[in-house]
Amino acid sequence: MSFNTFGRVFRFSTWGESHGPAIGAVVDGCPPGLPLSEDDIQPWLDLRKPGTSKFTTQRREPDEVRILSGVFEGRTTGTPISLMIENTDQRSKDYSEVAKAYRPGHADYAYDAKYGFRDYRGGGRSSARETASRVAAGAVARLVIPEVDIFAYVSEIGGDAVDYANFDPSQIGENPFFCPDAEAAKRWEALVDAARLDGSSLGAVVECVASGVPAGWGAPLYAKLDSELASAMMSINAVKGVEIGDGFAAARLRGEQNADPMRPGNDGPIFLANHAGGIAGGISTGQPVKVRVAFKPTSSILIPVETVTREGEASDIITRGRHDPCVGIRGVPVVEAMMALVLADQKLLHRAQCGG
Amino acid sequence: MSFNTFGRVFRFSTWGESHGPAIGAVVDGCPPGLPLSEDDIQPWLDLRKPGTSKFTTQRREPDEVRILSGVFEGRTTGTPISLMIENTDQRSKDYSEVAKAYRPGHADYAYDAKYGFRDYRGGGRSSARETASRVAAGAVARLVIPEVDIFAYVSEIGGDAVDYANFDPSQIGENPFFCPDAEAAKRWEALVDAARLDGSSLGAVVECVASGVPAGWGAPLYAKLDSELASAMMSINAVKGVEIGDGFAAARLRGEQNADPMRPGNDGPIFLANHAGGIAGGISTGQPVKVRVAFKPTSSILIPVETVTREGEASDIITRGRHDPCVGIRGVPVVEAMMALVLADQKLLHRAQCGG
Amino acid sequence: MSFNTFGRVFRFSTWGESHGPAIGAVVDGCPPGLPLSEDDIQPWLDLRKPGTSKFTTQRREPDEVRILSGVFEGRTTGTPISLMIENTDQRSKDYSEVAKAYRPGHADYAYDAKYGFRDYRGGGRSSARETASRVAAGAVARLVIPEVDIFAYVSEIGGDAVDYANFDPSQIGENPFFCPDAEAAKRWEALVDAARLDGSSLGAVVECVASGVPAGWGAPLYAKLDSELASAMMSINAVKGVEIGDGFAAARLRGEQNADPMRPGNDGPIFLANHAGGIAGGISTGQPVKVRVAFKPTSSILIPVETVTREGEASDIITRGRHDPCVGIRGVPVVEAMMALVLADQKLLHRAQCGG
Amino acid sequence: MSFNTFGRVFRFSTWGESHGPAIGAVVDGCPPGLPLSEDDIQPWLDLRKPGTSKFTTQRREPDEVRILSGVFEGRTTGTPISLMIENTDQRSKDYSEVAKAYRPGHADYAYDAKYGFRDYRGGGRSSARETASRVAAGAVARLVIPEVDIFAYVSEIGGDAVDYANFDPSQIGENPFFCPDAEAAKRWEALVDAARLDGSSLGAVVECVASGVPAGWGAPLYAKLDSELASAMMSINAVKGVEIGDGFAAARLRGEQNADPMRPGNDGPIFLANHAGGIAGGISTGQPVKVRVAFKPTSSILIPVETVTREGEASDIITRGRHDPCVGIRGVPVVEAMMALVLADQKLLHRAQCGG
Repeated sequence: MSFNTFGRVFRFSTWGESHGPAIGAVVDGCPPGLPLSEDDIQPWLDLRKPGTSKFTTQRREPDEVRILSGVFEGRTTGTPISLMIENTDQRSKDYSEVAKAYRPGHADYAYDAKYGFRDYRGGGRSSARETASRVAAGAVARLVIPEVDIFAYVSEIGGDAVDYANFDPSQIGENPFFCPDAEAAKRWEALVDAARLDGSSLGAVVECVASGVPAGWGAPLYAKLDSELASAMMSINAVKGVEIGDGFAAARLRGEQNADPMRPGNDGPIFLANHAGGIAGGISTGQPVKVRVAFKPTSSILIPVETVTREGEASDIITRGRHDPCVGIRGVPVVEAMMALVLADQKLLHRAQCGG
Repeated sequence: MSFNTFGRVFRFSTWGESHGPAIGAVVDGCPPGLPLSEDDIQPWLDLRKPGTSKFTTQRREPDEVRILSGVFEGRTTGTPISLMIENTDQRSKDYSEVAKAYRPGHADYAYDAKYGFRDYRGGGRSSARETASRVAAGAVARLVIPEVDIFAYVSEIGGDAVDYANFDPSQIGENPFFCPDAEAAKRWEALVDAARLDGSSLGAVVECVASGVPAGWGAPLYAKLDSELASAMMSINAVKGVEIGDGFAAARLRGEQNADPMRPGNDGPIFLANHAGGIAGGISTGQPVKVRVAFKPTSSILIPVETVTREGEASDIITRGRHDPCVGIRGVPVVEAMMALVLADQKLLHRAQCGG
Repeated sequence: MSFNTFGRVFRFSTWGESHGPAIGAVVDGCPPGLPLSEDDIQPWLDLRKPGTSKFTTQRREPDEVRILSGVFEGRTTGTPISLMIENTDQRSKDYSEVAKAYRPGHADYAYDAKYGFRDYRGGGRSSARETASRVAAGAVARLVIPEVDIFAYVSEIGGDAVDYANFDPSQIGENPFFCPDAEAAKRWEALVDAARLDGSSLGAVVECVASGVPAGWGAPLYAKLDSELASAMMSINAVKGVEIGDGFAAARLRGEQNADPMRPGNDGPIFLANHAGGIAGGISTGQPVKVRVAFKPTSSILIPVETVTREGEASDIITRGRHDPCVGIRGVPVVEAMMALVLADQKLLHRAQCGG
Repeated sequence: MSFNTFGRVFRFSTWGESHGPAIGAVVDGCPPGLPLSEDDIQPWLDLRKPGTSKFTTQRREPDEVRILSGVFEGRTTGTPISLMIENTDQRSKDYSEVAKAYRPGHADYAYDAKYGFRDYRGGGRSSARETASRVAAGAVARLVIPEVDIFAYVSEIGGDAVDYANFDPSQIGENPFFCPDAEAAKRWEALVDAARLDGSSLGAVVECVASGVPAGWGAPLYAKLDSELASAMMSINAVKGVEIGDGFAAARLRGEQNADPMRPGNDGPIFLANHAGGIAGGISTGQPVKVRVAFKPTSSILIPVETVTREGEASDIITRGRHDPCVGIRGVPVVEAMMALVLADQKLLHRAQCGG
């Protein structure tokens, strides 16, 4: 796989920088005959669109997607689907300072070290703006796996977790945090706002569940479903940890506690627990596939941090501009998109080898 | 990429089942002219060799590796390096019961669901035995990155963590747990032995540090160094979680706490912290690369668990045979091997694009 | 590799249909710091631009390329380079008939058989228009291999071959046929015009030479330089044959005739012949790399051909519209582009494994 | 894809040198449940086995294949199939001279230039012996495409072609040349024997036909069926040219001559000609897939050729040892194997994207 391509048979490549003329994705290997128009993609983009509340960046982009190829008379043709989103709100002046000094926690120094220079405008290629391309590609992936229902939510912000006793999926769309717990959502409003006013930022944990995945998707050993998911999630900006099922908590259980007992069911076994997160030996078991993703706090803050300049001199830096006080919030549609992209690829890979 | 191949330019493929005649790996893309003999590989295999203590499976395998190609007059030729390890201690009778019913937590059911049948002897392809091939391939990878020093250790077993105040790398080789804390090692002896006698098992957390990685390895966006590491670690049997740097703990920090401040140094900036685990924007920063890996408790236990038979009838299963009471322990050399394999690939990828 | 992507580390993906809003290419893995602007790409596109003489299609497209990403302050950043060319001259009415019946020699039937339907406008994805994207990507590839000089020409049209005694590279740009033999160019003018007036078409042979390729590019066994070139050239529309060096003629030589004897030179051996076309064992020898490519006659002709309709009824078809009487002519810049793309990829692959 | 791996979803990697302990192949992505034993592979290996007549090398190898993984209870499990063939007849003393000087036409110099040194014993990795691994892998591929019938034959040796009026498939197995024309076989006996006694060698052309390939296999644009076949065939030792259907002859036809007219048939259209070799737009049409492959004369000859030594001094070289006077003859089973490997991969790729 190339550096900016993901997937094996259902593949997508993204391109574009935060402040270039546009960003986009090319989806290749999509099955033919699927009904597809901009209207199937736009709603997902709107979910991650900036500027929707004071809890996200105030950058305002309509993020309107255009389909440039791969669709004819409203259906996918099986040829590459080129998706483009124009960058409309670019305030390069916001970023002049970044050209001189490295923002700790950002890719600035690493990019310079690797490439010798960098497009410093808004983080260039390393900007979370790239995730819009993933969300667009993910919308296409969803069409490939109609049997699967994917939903993600924020389960924790700044260490304050939801109470699963209050878990109510219908709440997720009712607050600006994709929070399934109305109580937690209220608390987070104060929490995130305070961080914002401090010029600071908060981390978050996003959980994603895919139900309807049949048993048998995935493959030993380096295309394991969990391995692919880990790669996909860890490729998202600001992500520092990935868990499948119980994840690290499983390391604290004994074998008999961690087992997912099975009982006969009408179509295949019924599982009495799901510590494994729906994956065993890298292959789906038919249970819901569960992933947890850790987002670090946004590195762009108004609190000065010690740094060095490109010339190697000591300096302090404050990252002005319009930033998310908690980038994990807008990570929710991105996590969903990556889940859809991995599952679409695995479905086609399974069909390639095992038919059906 | 194929299901059993890992890497992009420095690639390896593994093959073989627990109870077939042999297992092996083919390493392709290795630079020419590197001194290589079985003696460079065997010591790493010996570290994960079973039967070394009562805390690991009693299966006894010499695990002797043979180099079948790719080396001439003691040096790598640049052509594929074929590594083979014969399976010598196969007690298939131990596994007859497994043929009938599915072991919860194992790949049994998922393999049947995917492939229609399975090699049930010792888990076949899903056996942790496959990791011997990775360790062998990893030994070759180490030759590609002499500038890098890799070491891993167990930081937690069954929820009992090491005390970093007692951290002493020289201890890692002094106990059967790869434990850097002599105190913890003593406690674990009792802990693991108790679980073993109960016929139960324990989970563990393995930490791995690679120092000497220069700034600039890795790539946006789907070949990020952290994304590759997550994929590599999650592909190891029994792994359910991966963290880079502070991982999930970073989600509980504020932006200013999580920043890794920089100060001028003699060769490039000096970092005053390493929350990021040596990776920013998917590219190494020159700090030590840090990964944490969660291993679930061994699923093969002597405590009966509810299951179903291949015919779909209710049953209880006890997994007899010779199993690790804590599979995470022998995961240490495997985690090190995967770290080496990822870094070798990333070094060559960086050289391809950026030279030097 | 995905269906519409070519290359291993220097990779490009093309997208777009003949009559969609645009076509384009995404180039990934390009080294950073290379000076690049539209002006480096446009001249190559102009060479294959339609409508330049009565010997090519009368479709008129400015074929203006835009760089949408991967370049900052006039240099490549190492991130994906997105290239877009808008389709401006689309006369869909020309193609209504094609929707009903299959054009023999075209992809029409095969696409329907594979995908269930097709974008019939101008051949959709199978249109030679896609090659404009390759030429644009090839212009980027040329920047990666400044040490290499590539030139291609038409050596034969409709069975009438150039006389190598008259071979004069300076002639190639002086006639509409990329012909290095002024005499042959005159004959071809009459030949191609006659075919055009008959509503028929002619095949051609294109030869391409790359000098300056150092010894050592390529690799055993399935990434051989000649294997990559064969794949690249055979992927061009209308190509039916590829030869390296003497090609099929070598099958008629004896061993001692086909040998390329070596003599000591100042920098490495001097070869006294080049039957091998600069490649031995899949690896460049330092001699000029030589490829011959056979283009079939354009399938779109005004002479009726027996065919069947989508409904399976017998019919005759005439392909109206604006077509090349000899598609091989405009194949010259495409062959050059594919040569550049293969060599750029092989250069980086060699650097990955062997450094330098 | 890695240097020694071929295929996209049905993939194989080969390893091993002429004079190492063994050679082999790992086949990955094979569908599960296919009956497979050594007996399904050995007959194909026997076809290319050396020492069967005075027209092939006198090296004597039983070439016995062993299956080391991926098969359980006589059926493929869907996991990697490891195939190994031991090298039994290694006369390294035959090759001492080759260590000092470069054999023109061989990979000797190119390997040294790329890797800095080489395994000079029998050509090491560049030996045609590697093709035994392909034939073994190809035997597995055949099981994946039972609907396809593949046969290849030699159509020309040293410029002396078969007469298609005498074409009789049943003859192919009746002579040591895989020749379908009994008359030509007689002539070739004298021809090849004369070359052998002169210490010279002859080139050959191999043709391969695959019937039963349904319409729809292949893909635009860089995984075209013809592009994959060209890559596969050109990767075979000594191959210098590949044609699909009429190949270079098509470049001499007019459009109306080259068209393959269609007429309605009971199941899909009937084609009245097959100039295209069963492929249009890179996708199979349902007609027989036809490939022609040019083999150069064996470079190892007893006639002295001018060369240079590793130290750069002028020298003459005679290649002693046991060589094929016409390597194209034993290329026949290799060409068939590559055809099978490409078609198996394309079948699974088609199933991945388009189902069925």
